[in-house]
Amino acid sequence: MPMPEKIIWSDEHYTIHASLSIRADGTFDPRLFKAMTRFKQRVAERTGVFMKTWVVDEGNMPVKASLQIQVEGSGVVKLDMDESYSLKVSRDGILIRSATDIGAIRALETLFQLISFNDNSFFFHGVDLTDKPRFSWRGLLIAQPYHFLPMEVIKRTLDAMCLVKLNVLHFYLSDDQAYTIESKKYPELHQKASLGQYFTHEQIKEIVDYADERGIRVVPELDLPGHSTAILSLFPHLAALEKKYDLQDHWGVFDPVMDPTKESTYQFLDTLLTEVAGLFKDQYFHIGGDENTGKHWAQNDSIQHFMKNNNLNSTVALQNYFNKRVQQILSKSGKTTVAWDEIIMQEIDGNKAKEFFEKGQYDALILKDVPKDMVIQSWRGMEALLSSAKNGYRSILSKGYYIDLVQPASYHYLNDPVPSKNTQIIPDSEANFDRFESEIIKKIKGGDPLLTPEEEKFIIGGEATMWTEHTTPETVDARIWPRTAAIAERLWSPANLRDVNDMYRRMDQISIQLEWVGATHLKNPPMMLRRLSGQEDILPLQKVIGLIEPLKGYKRNELDNFTKFSPYTQVVDVAVPDPPSLRKSNKIIDDATMKNLSSLTEMLKMWKDNHSSVLHLAKGNPLLEPVIHHSASLQQLASAMLEFIELKEKGSKVGGNWHQNFGLLIEKSSKPNGYCELMVVEALKQFVLKNR
Amino acid sequence: MPMPEKIIWSDEHYTIHASLSIRADGTFDPRLFKAMTRFKQRVAERTGVFMKTWVVDEGNMPVKASLQIQVEGSGVVKLDMDESYSLKVSRDGILIRSATDIGAIRALETLFQLISFNDNSFFFHGVDLTDKPRFSWRGLLIAQPYHFLPMEVIKRTLDAMCLVKLNVLHFYLSDDQAYTIESKKYPELHQKASLGQYFTHEQIKEIVDYADERGIRVVPELDLPGHSTAILSLFPHLAALEKKYDLQDHWGVFDPVMDPTKESTYQFLDTLLTEVAGLFKDQYFHIGGDENTGKHWAQNDSIQHFMKNNNLNSTVALQNYFNKRVQQILSKSGKTTVAWDEIIMQEIDGNKAKEFFEKGQYDALILKDVPKDMVIQSWRGMEALLSSAKNGYRSILSKGYYIDLVQPASYHYLNDPVPSKNTQIIPDSEANFDRFESEIIKKIKGGDPLLTPEEEKFIIGGEATMWTEHTTPETVDARIWPRTAAIAERLWSPANLRDVNDMYRRMDQISIQLEWVGATHLKNPPMMLRRLSGQEDILPLQKVIGLIEPLKGYKRNELDNFTKFSPYTQVVDVAVPDPPSLRKSNKIIDDATMKNLSSLTEMLKMWKDNHSSVLHLAKGNPLLEPVIHHSASLQQLASAMLEFIELKEKGSKVGGNWHQNFGLLIEKSSKPNGYCELMVVEALKQFVLKNR
Repeated sequence: MPMPEKIIWSDEHYTIHASLSIRADGTFDPRLFKAMTRFKQRVAERTGVFMKTWVVDEGNMPVKASLQIQVEGSGVVKLDMDESYSLKVSRDGILIRSATDIGAIRALETLFQLISFNDNSFFFHGVDLTDKPRFSWRGLLIAQPYHFLPMEVIKRTLDAMCLVKLNVLHFYLSDDQAYTIESKKYPELHQKASLGQYFTHEQIKEIVDYADERGIRVVPELDLPGHSTAILSLFPHLAALEKKYDLQDHWGVFDPVMDPTKESTYQFLDTLLTEVAGLFKDQYFHIGGDENTGKHWAQNDSIQHFMKNNNLNSTVALQNYFNKRVQQILSKSGKTTVAWDEIIMQEIDGNKAKEFFEKGQYDALILKDVPKDMVIQSWRGMEALLSSAKNGYRSILSKGYYIDLVQPASYHYLNDPVPSKNTQIIPDSEANFDRFESEIIKKIKGGDPLLTPEEEKFIIGGEATMWTEHTTPETVDARIWPRTAAIAERLWSPANLRDVNDMYRRMDQISIQLEWVGATHLKNPPMMLRRLSGQEDILPLQKVIGLIEPLKGYKRNELDNFTKFSPYTQVVDVAVPDPPSLRKSNKIIDDATMKNLSSLTEMLKMWKDNHSSVLHLAKGNPLLEPVIHHSASLQQLASAMLEFIELKEKGSKVGGNWHQNFGLLIEKSSKPNGYCELMVVEALKQFVLKNR
Repeated sequence: MPMPEKIIWSDEHYTIHASLSIRADGTFDPRLFKAMTRFKQRVAERTGVFMKTWVVDEGNMPVKASLQIQVEGSGVVKLDMDESYSLKVSRDGILIRSATDIGAIRALETLFQLISFNDNSFFFHGVDLTDKPRFSWRGLLIAQPYHFLPMEVIKRTLDAMCLVKLNVLHFYLSDDQAYTIESKKYPELHQKASLGQYFTHEQIKEIVDYADERGIRVVPELDLPGHSTAILSLFPHLAALEKKYDLQDHWGVFDPVMDPTKESTYQFLDTLLTEVAGLFKDQYFHIGGDENTGKHWAQNDSIQHFMKNNNLNSTVALQNYFNKRVQQILSKSGKTTVAWDEIIMQEIDGNKAKEFFEKGQYDALILKDVPKDMVIQSWRGMEALLSSAKNGYRSILSKGYYIDLVQPASYHYLNDPVPSKNTQIIPDSEANFDRFESEIIKKIKGGDPLLTPEEEKFIIGGEATMWTEHTTPETVDARIWPRTAAIAERLWSPANLRDVNDMYRRMDQISIQLEWVGATHLKNPPMMLRRLSGQEDILPLQKVIGLIEPLKGYKRNELDNFTKFSPYTQVVDVAVPDPPSLRKSNKIIDDATMKNLSSLTEMLKMWKDNHSSVLHLAKGNPLLEPVIHHSASLQQLASAMLEFIELKEKGSKVGGNWHQNFGLLIEKSSKPNGYCELMVVEALKQFVLKNR
């Protein structure tokens, strides 16, 4: 995972011995030596063979090796880098061919996934495959200003990204809550607007180099002109409303915004952006641009005058003026800008917009003079994505890849940057922005691809977004992995690969491998549970937590006023999105028939019996209340279900009374508790309906 | 844990609300603000209360706070720093008094351990206590040259050390296998003798500062003149035998050694040691001195001439000449030297030495002219420790605290730096060095303390030693924790605290808290097991692994030729020393009588049934062979035991045949497999003997 483009399996396995040797020929960047060394170490650790050394370098490559790599040329980590490769495993050896060393690095990850065992020896599975990515921009956004994720989190995330062939780390560094990167030009920024949590220039270099060694670009984002309270807290004279600003510690959308009409704003940004741009090798620089409420601009007469004088008749038009100035600054550092989709969409009424859409007047949906080299990141949906692509802007999709919203992997997996007739299109349950999503879906389903093949090429990829308001270094891995592996496959593998069950089967395997390279998604939840309970033996609690999920979407924040200083160490933080045990349990319920009940009744009995163990461990512990609550629901549901099954098996009638009580129980059990939902309720309800 | 010196419990608990506030008065180092901030965050995360902020600084302290800290003076992190404090928790508030901010930091750790819950609220348990350490040097050695432990391991180790009030990180940085610290003077050292794994000067500063904030000293060690192949690989002209040296990748004692007769050696060391000394604030610098075989000195005629000319009649005498020269170099940087106990002991025959001991001629046991300010670290036993102390050398004990040797916590716990009549003295099973240990024990047990109270004062503490030959960043935490908490208590708490059962009860609790601050000792073993099995559900395997331990002492290395490039990802690396489940199981066996068998039979049935689940998960997986092996033993033992119990309960005779078979089974099950031993065998054998 992600599945290669073309693959032919064979039984010609290559057995792994201590003598496994590697050689690379051709022209390549020295990063390949490091990748080969990592590969050799991982193979040794996976198979337990005692190798003489893991280190592969110029000096110690054998003339003839069991694994031969042929590289055509040195790779440069940038947009549209060549990541293609072929890989052949046969009884006598392994051959990798690639255009660049980056392709070879991708090939080594694929090869590692081919390790298997049989008859007490390990081998690489026989295979003949060619592979290349479907999209060139395959990213993961990591946000720093809400909860700072230190170096080791970034490194293990880069390792995990490399494993699933993602190639862009979108490094979100500034927002209302913090500015998280050292500035030598304005040191008060990192000193006073970061709570002491920021990356030094050396650390940024370390991250960029670490990413480069894995064929991953690092695209920084400083969110401008809104989402900038951290900057304005130190430079209030740059604000549209000049007053004292404190670092924000709540989550949400706030009004503070830079004043785009003052030259001093651009002087400041010239100095700052030039400094930051110099730290990152990649050609692309993200300038944010989202969620500018425009309120402070509206409240400032001088800004209003400026707009009139310059014929800028909307917030977005003024912001476009700002963006162009910022772009000029960044272009001096050789940068191309990326921004969120707000910056290109006209402020027009929904009905009017729909009318333009119906008529195919996509040019009327967008601003006229947004520079054509700008890359648009669509987070609000297909309306913006299609409009951008149709008007010739390179676009990347993030809507549907918001992994912070606790959707199942299948949801993200089926979300395609280029939706088509054959694609399953899921309307976004959080649809605040897509004003005519249903019309778009209807057209596409009706056979109108909406995009010509030429226009389609402007959709260059997608990005999973890890917004970290409710996520800490402890929990972030479980919010990213393994679900992001499914998104990585969507962005790398052929569009027609859409078998959800097979995706899950493979995702469960890759999950273990992701842990291998450092991801803590499997090991941190039990740790947190030990801490909550003060006990080492937490199995009964795990049985419950494996069946609940954190509230989806933005509901958690609606329930309580979470801030940067809230404790993110509770049951909801232990619960993970889309847990395997939940899928397994729901499958048992779905598969059960009145003739084949043994797995179901066994599970129901386990739920019922487990509750006393839960009480034993959790009673009186205020923090474990939600586990007790959901465990009690499970116990009651299990009792009712067992009663139902017993009556049915006896051929007795299940009375209206039972159904009424069951209905009440379903209703009660469906309610969230501790910001968590019990996720087996619907399946149980369906079972009863089916077998009524 | 460690237990305070004097403690009076009360029921006047202090309830924890979101409004919990902290104030510190008096003169103190700003490190206290950071400690208060960490404390507040941890309390919030432990109790789930939503505080407005965690940050405590000069500007935001309330006039009156629920937790008042009164500090007399600013603390300096150094030997003999004042760590004493008093702590009173009552219904109305909490008061900490301390001589220095370091004492206050120790008090906050104690206070954190007083968190409890009841009736759905959290509180600090009512208490009135005074506390100070028994020994001033309470250390943990971490070795870098065998398996490099990167920054995040060091940081989490420092956090865990602070939790259990250890105050010295002994940072072992150079050996035959690697030189692990950046040198700007000799950059080839870190570039070519570290496999790319070393600490930069900035990182060393970060470590020293991080430790200082937690009241922990950092004492570096460069092992000289032996254990220096890494240095000699780049500077062979400094060697006693000048030839090409490669970095060593095996473990053990090797002959390469510096030439102590050449001035160029001291010129080199002057430059290098002065550079390294400048990176560490602490006054103490460890120069190693252990395991110099002397062979290469004997093979060099010029060195032999030098010895004759200078009246140096033994290896250790020549080494003492070397040490004094090195000491002169370090004293220019204001450093006092520490070294292993070899450097002070005369090379005399064991019988002769015993004779001196019997006559109380301790001065005859040691070299005459070892500088008196030198600190001696005794790793070889009481002979050296007593000799040093009796001759007025400050001494620290490490023998008995070798946590790499997989001894149980109780073994380390009962090992006292100042053995006495009332102390349980455990002869060292690895006793290669203590030539008259049994005589020493006999004398002490006979009532002769051997040390006068004045002499006793020269024993200033102890150090746990984490030698990392068989330990990686993945496994190191489980080799250090929680056992080192028991050593920490030995070095901090009153000597008469010796209840092993109570120690274990508290150690199991502190284990969860250690995990809290980052230690991975509980979460990494399951991760490694998931990786070995490729499955998320590993419970049946855990049941077996919880009853086995890695081979103790140096036996693992005797069995196979492990190197720096061996895979330390096997079953033996998943197994941990002194696992709680093993203690629990052995207790069930020990407590069982023929009248009270239910827990035992339940456990035996579980072992028996578990085997098929083990086979299901592990069969055919070469790396899980040891689990299958030991699980099969468990199954067979359980079957035999159940048969024994059944016969006994029926009042039937258990035949000789059964006993013979059981004897064979015991013998077979006692044998190591996969470098691991099944640790319940002896208890089962005893049960049968007892109930025969």
